[in-house]
Amino acid sequence: MKAVILGISGYTGMILLRMLADHPEVKEIIPVSSSKPGEKIIEIDPGIGKAVMEKTNASNNCTVEISHAITRKPDVVFAALPHLTSAVMCEPFFGNSVVIDLSADLRIKDPALFQKAYNAPTPAPHMLEKAVYGLSEIYENEIKKADVIANPGCYPTCILFPIIPLAAKNLIEGTIISNAASGISGAGKKATIGNLYVERTENMCAYLPGKTHRHYTEMKKEIDSFDSSIDLFFTPHLVPIKRGMYATSVVSLKSNVSAETVENAFNEYYANKKFILLKGGTLTETRDVWGSNRCDISWQIQDGKIILFSAIDNLIKGASGQAVQNMNLRFNFDETAGLRLYGEL
Amino acid sequence: MKAVILGISGYTGMILLRMLADHPEVKEIIPVSSSKPGEKIIEIDPGIGKAVMEKTNASNNCTVEISHAITRKPDVVFAALPHLTSAVMCEPFFGNSVVIDLSADLRIKDPALFQKAYNAPTPAPHMLEKAVYGLSEIYENEIKKADVIANPGCYPTCILFPIIPLAAKNLIEGTIISNAASGISGAGKKATIGNLYVERTENMCAYLPGKTHRHYTEMKKEIDSFDSSIDLFFTPHLVPIKRGMYATSVVSLKSNVSAETVENAFNEYYANKKFILLKGGTLTETRDVWGSNRCDISWQIQDGKIILFSAIDNLIKGASGQAVQNMNLRFNFDETAGLRLYGEL
Amino acid sequence: MKAVILGISGYTGMILLRMLADHPEVKEIIPVSSSKPGEKIIEIDPGIGKAVMEKTNASNNCTVEISHAITRKPDVVFAALPHLTSAVMCEPFFGNSVVIDLSADLRIKDPALFQKAYNAPTPAPHMLEKAVYGLSEIYENEIKKADVIANPGCYPTCILFPIIPLAAKNLIEGTIISNAASGISGAGKKATIGNLYVERTENMCAYLPGKTHRHYTEMKKEIDSFDSSIDLFFTPHLVPIKRGMYATSVVSLKSNVSAETVENAFNEYYANKKFILLKGGTLTETRDVWGSNRCDISWQIQDGKIILFSAIDNLIKGASGQAVQNMNLRFNFDETAGLRLYGEL
Amino acid sequence: MKAVILGISGYTGMILLRMLADHPEVKEIIPVSSSKPGEKIIEIDPGIGKAVMEKTNASNNCTVEISHAITRKPDVVFAALPHLTSAVMCEPFFGNSVVIDLSADLRIKDPALFQKAYNAPTPAPHMLEKAVYGLSEIYENEIKKADVIANPGCYPTCILFPIIPLAAKNLIEGTIISNAASGISGAGKKATIGNLYVERTENMCAYLPGKTHRHYTEMKKEIDSFDSSIDLFFTPHLVPIKRGMYATSVVSLKSNVSAETVENAFNEYYANKKFILLKGGTLTETRDVWGSNRCDISWQIQDGKIILFSAIDNLIKGASGQAVQNMNLRFNFDETAGLRLYGEL
Repeated sequence: MKAVILGISGYTGMILLRMLADHPEVKEIIPVSSSKPGEKIIEIDPGIGKAVMEKTNASNNCTVEISHAITRKPDVVFAALPHLTSAVMCEPFFGNSVVIDLSADLRIKDPALFQKAYNAPTPAPHMLEKAVYGLSEIYENEIKKADVIANPGCYPTCILFPIIPLAAKNLIEGTIISNAASGISGAGKKATIGNLYVERTENMCAYLPGKTHRHYTEMKKEIDSFDSSIDLFFTPHLVPIKRGMYATSVVSLKSNVSAETVENAFNEYYANKKFILLKGGTLTETRDVWGSNRCDISWQIQDGKIILFSAIDNLIKGASGQAVQNMNLRFNFDETAGLRLYGEL
Repeated sequence: MKAVILGISGYTGMILLRMLADHPEVKEIIPVSSSKPGEKIIEIDPGIGKAVMEKTNASNNCTVEISHAITRKPDVVFAALPHLTSAVMCEPFFGNSVVIDLSADLRIKDPALFQKAYNAPTPAPHMLEKAVYGLSEIYENEIKKADVIANPGCYPTCILFPIIPLAAKNLIEGTIISNAASGISGAGKKATIGNLYVERTENMCAYLPGKTHRHYTEMKKEIDSFDSSIDLFFTPHLVPIKRGMYATSVVSLKSNVSAETVENAFNEYYANKKFILLKGGTLTETRDVWGSNRCDISWQIQDGKIILFSAIDNLIKGASGQAVQNMNLRFNFDETAGLRLYGEL
Repeated sequence: MKAVILGISGYTGMILLRMLADHPEVKEIIPVSSSKPGEKIIEIDPGIGKAVMEKTNASNNCTVEISHAITRKPDVVFAALPHLTSAVMCEPFFGNSVVIDLSADLRIKDPALFQKAYNAPTPAPHMLEKAVYGLSEIYENEIKKADVIANPGCYPTCILFPIIPLAAKNLIEGTIISNAASGISGAGKKATIGNLYVERTENMCAYLPGKTHRHYTEMKKEIDSFDSSIDLFFTPHLVPIKRGMYATSVVSLKSNVSAETVENAFNEYYANKKFILLKGGTLTETRDVWGSNRCDISWQIQDGKIILFSAIDNLIKGASGQAVQNMNLRFNFDETAGLRLYGEL
Repeated sequence: MKAVILGISGYTGMILLRMLADHPEVKEIIPVSSSKPGEKIIEIDPGIGKAVMEKTNASNNCTVEISHAITRKPDVVFAALPHLTSAVMCEPFFGNSVVIDLSADLRIKDPALFQKAYNAPTPAPHMLEKAVYGLSEIYENEIKKADVIANPGCYPTCILFPIIPLAAKNLIEGTIISNAASGISGAGKKATIGNLYVERTENMCAYLPGKTHRHYTEMKKEIDSFDSSIDLFFTPHLVPIKRGMYATSVVSLKSNVSAETVENAFNEYYANKKFILLKGGTLTETRDVWGSNRCDISWQIQDGKIILFSAIDNLIKGASGQAVQNMNLRFNFDETAGLRLYGEL
């Protein structure tokens, strides 16, 4: 099993590297960096371990050009690249390797919707039909047969898991009011003043509310596929945590929907799902999932409304972890291989 | 002008001490501590300055018993004490001094509502009629004549300022879905495991959602006084910031309410209010108000809904600062005396 | 392999639980809590995983009394209890199980020294001769045969690793000036005002400098055992990090000691040590070892002095991780079993 | 009184703006930005207050070009610009206005030393003789007559205050081993990956130890001017705090120097100094000086060595605050005008 990582120097690329180093089925990792080919990976990440060194041996523990990666005929390619670049860079791998794209490039099938959300044409229109949306626990069967997987965004991952069972079983109505907060790593490893320590510590703010964030489009089309009568208002926030994401969503239950019906919906939908922890009325915290691939879900019902709470690690279940989980599903490996079931103190 | 502070060792008591030290009209401060009378105030707060020392000279720069404070016939008493204790401790001062109670004891006029929210009888029923709710910019005229002021809670202060102009002018309908996040100082200076640095840093969670937090009751009765047809769902969160509070509230505008009508409502309601900063569509951040007595308000309208953003320093406008502002109003001082108009980097 | 953890609700106890859950050789974990026997372990740690549940099955996933643990005849006992309590509670296990004591009770063989540092008599004088100091990489041979292991303190672990090779080979002289900083978890899971989030975030201070901290005694006796002519001045600090420890130590090199001699000393001493990472002149950071059992060491030589930099995770290599490593050594398991070689982003 | 600030968009420029807005003697502030002339200052700092607006009225509350500032004939110019640029930009103001340079350009009188530390020729050699080193409490008399003031670096400010009285009175000998830690704002408002929130939160490291940091040169020449027999080893660290600096320095006392002699030295040297707080054996914390212009000093003597602890706010006493204090001294204003004597909770 040979795996390529495109975009090794970003946060999600680096975490993919660590996860694949721990993965029992991956024997070789080919780390690609367009900006700094030939750089020692220990320079990029001084905390890296021995397993990484062994599995990157074939490229002398250095990053390589993408052209080199193509010649190595990898089994799987993880694209941890910016939107609009990612699917383009994957072009030589389509048809030859399983491609798992962590960007938004292949998530939205309708080119007009993509254009509206990203203010640019969809970059790989010919692959849209093939691409499977990689929300692992929802599209498990499709992922098992997919050669192109569009890994979901972090906000959609966190917000959709509690919503989908209720939408799928027609238990809710009206507008979902969803407030979510992201750790700062969600902005990526980019040198900007706005994400300096001094700007973000001990500070909180909202941004791009209502229907203006790109992930709104991604979520709305998913919810539509289960119940198109439901609307969504979504406000993301930045909070001073390094990694983690929390969503609080409020929506009206249809009349006559009982607490038991809700509980059954969750239990049926996520029976035997190792990475979904249903906590019932006990509220979740982001640290419970720090470093793990879990999504923890809590809920409370009051006055005909349900309040949904969900927490993920934005870099794991919200990005690199779900990507590895999708690889596990696709190649029929143990679903938990290379992944952690519990968080870090 | 002689001022008593009851509960000097808590966060709000300590900040009152610093603010009154800077206040040009307060000549003497009498710091009361029931738990540790006779303690040097520099032991409680090593960062304290010379002005504090000068104004606490009469008590030898030490805390005193409440019995001593009574004999000093203060002009004003700030009670920074726990709920259910506060109004009881103020008993000897009622009628003799202006009392500004930072606890919830005098905020809710209906004893049944108080009982429900606090699971105890209202502690000073004979004062409820006299007590004025101290939301400074809303009840300025009443505060100017009040001898007992019930200083509002931090969540109500943050959430009500953007809501009241809309409710008062009948511009909104349905249920307000309000999500708010508080800095950890909101929990007070109490030794608990839940508020240890290790438990709260890099961690976020919700608590007491919907209609279960005590401040729900305080907010609902206020909103009712302007438009009782509006309902409220409120979910507080804890985020790892020391001080600061952020609220994001979503509610439907009545049909035919234009953006201009909304803007006019805010502008009229808060014309000449020095501590309310209307930022229109530019979203606010908590650090903008760190250390200041301001409430910053932003809003955006989409699809018939208005999203309201408000930020305060929970210890200042949400507690001690608003208390000093209320004293300024009551004694006809410059409204900004002892208070800061802008935050700290 | 049956393992008992005494003191399951503290930070080190909880991390031991998670590590042993991942450990391939440990089949059963018996979690003891004197304060709350019978409590569900998922209540203590909601982030806990499936492996923990399986291995605590025999006690119904609940904490048990110590009396119950004794009857289970464990192979190994980890005592994660406060000083002066720990060795006393271990009494029934001495002679029957391998005991790994994470407290200071068995670290200092000289009762007079213990009395001076801890202001109390050494609690288990009869075990002092048997107890081996568990600085894993230094006392590997002794640990392999030990039935009682005194797990080192966090500051000694961090500071001694770079010092011992230099002292052992007689390369340094005079007084070591060591400054170290600890994450707040070093203070344990105790409800105190001093360790509240509000008190510690964005704040730094020193405490117990020179020769006044208890760990001074532990370090000095170790250094003495290699070269008693060397003196030590040690100042610990608190910095706002949850976990992690950093030490910067300065000492004079003997004349004629070359950079090469120093490098050789480190390389020889730590050849094939998987948990010691020698970084030469590249300075280390605490996050490189977050969650890992490594101690990273850097050094620079200027003007006849050597500056030593070392970093550990205070809860892992500084406590629970080194305890598990000592178990691995003692029972001849793979030294890295249950432990992580690299940190977390 | 007209004041120019060069470099308004950096952290020190912005804080100067806020301080001068509060300053009773400054009637007009001319904010200069070379990178973004014409920008609204409220865009740079949304938390800015009314006083700032009033005092920048003459430039329409916008930043201006330096050429415009020259025509306004300011009384005082604060240069908050990068090293090597600062003194060059001040050229048109020398001789016409009092210039307070916050950069290192005028701190080191010996061009060879400057070249060595900054790897570039000293940028304004003709001004070196005129420039007075602005360590306010030490060079008060010189500052009162100076037309060019070289404002000290943050590390020198923090470390020198406790050292100078001891060196001046010949109480110490040998090498001072000084460890200091800076808040992240010390790196300025520059977009770099190394200072992103994700890179710095929950992380600590050392950098440029021994004699390699530029501030070493600045400190050594100062210490030399009091006692050139004393050497210095200095290791700076980065800790996850936004603002604040802490220094722990260890040095040998000369034989026969008593604790009383030391205490007298501090008391005499800093008698009546409002911004130096001598705390004796009580250790200081950085939060005590957050936002204030104080330097807090503690010390302990053990075994013939003295351990010195000092704390400042790196942006205030370590930069903008000391600059305003120097203006106050030079223009014979109240030394505390525009400055805070105590910190923020």
